[in-house]
Amino acid sequence: MTHPPSAREQTRRTIFAEDLKTGVEYNLGTYLVTAEEIADFASSWDPQEFHVDHVAARDSFFGHVVASGIHTLAVFQKLTVESHLWDWNVMAGRGIRDIRFRRPVTANDRLAGRFVIDQINTDSRGRAAVTSMGTLHNQNGQLVLEVTTEALVQTREYDKTRDNRSRRR
Amino acid sequence: MTHPPSAREQTRRTIFAEDLKTGVEYNLGTYLVTAEEIADFASSWDPQEFHVDHVAARDSFFGHVVASGIHTLAVFQKLTVESHLWDWNVMAGRGIRDIRFRRPVTANDRLAGRFVIDQINTDSRGRAAVTSMGTLHNQNGQLVLEVTTEALVQTREYDKTRDNRSRRR
Repeated sequence: MTHPPSAREQTRRTIFAEDLKTGVEYNLGTYLVTAEEIADFASSWDPQEFHVDHVAARDSFFGHVVASGIHTLAVFQKLTVESHLWDWNVMAGRGIRDIRFRRPVTANDRLAGRFVIDQINTDSRGRAAVTSMGTLHNQNGQLVLEVTTEALVQTREYDKTRDNRSRRR
Repeated sequence: MTHPPSAREQTRRTIFAEDLKTGVEYNLGTYLVTAEEIADFASSWDPQEFHVDHVAARDSFFGHVVASGIHTLAVFQKLTVESHLWDWNVMAGRGIRDIRFRRPVTANDRLAGRFVIDQINTDSRGRAAVTSMGTLHNQNGQLVLEVTTEALVQTREYDKTRDNRSRRR
């Protein structure tokens, strides 16, 4: 998808690392997972039989088709970006830690996301490593996903000239 | 995708936890990441501008469009399932730890995967938690992804009758 940045995109990224605080909790809204999307995602990226085959899944540990964990993680990322990260001056995702799939996600589950900022560590170049702990709960209030993410966020003082590491490729 | 299990699927799952050994390394083959796929995946799941917008990405930390980390992780999962996990009696994915995005993935990168089994812990019901450490390297031999996964694998002695936890939903 190539397109020039819209006026909305040009003005959106108003949040810098200085605007973030540990302990603040963010509501990410909800996302409905459909049977078709479970099958499509798993067929492309995680075609284990308990994700793609309704007949074989009956004899599986779960007893029915469940969403791929990578799909569940992708739902968390989508909710995070569309509700908040679009406004942040995110430079890069550094890593993800401690993903736990607490309960299976199945067709027609509506997942509600939250995250809370756990740590903000700013380096001498003005780049802040922001660690957040996120969750997804289903429509019954049951925890389905826990995840800890680490993103690099610009401070207002970020010194771009000292940071040529990424330009090498 | 609903279909009856094929003869190939019915006979494929020949590997039980007893057949696995710590320290064994698995070659996952390679996967070519295209510009179109980077845009498609990110548009659906991670629409940050440095993943989807070639113009805005010029001013980003990377200086060009890079693949979503969730996309990179999905490539690792696809390679793992299609090269090996299809043969294993996997019951469920329990979690993923310590995902590090070591270098950006860009259009036309060919990613080569490996994983090595780190731990196998079997419980009294005959379910083995198998921890593996995986990597993706690009065509220049550069490490792009590190990931530690934990899957539940059946032993031949797995006692299904004692394991009704997952049937509650």
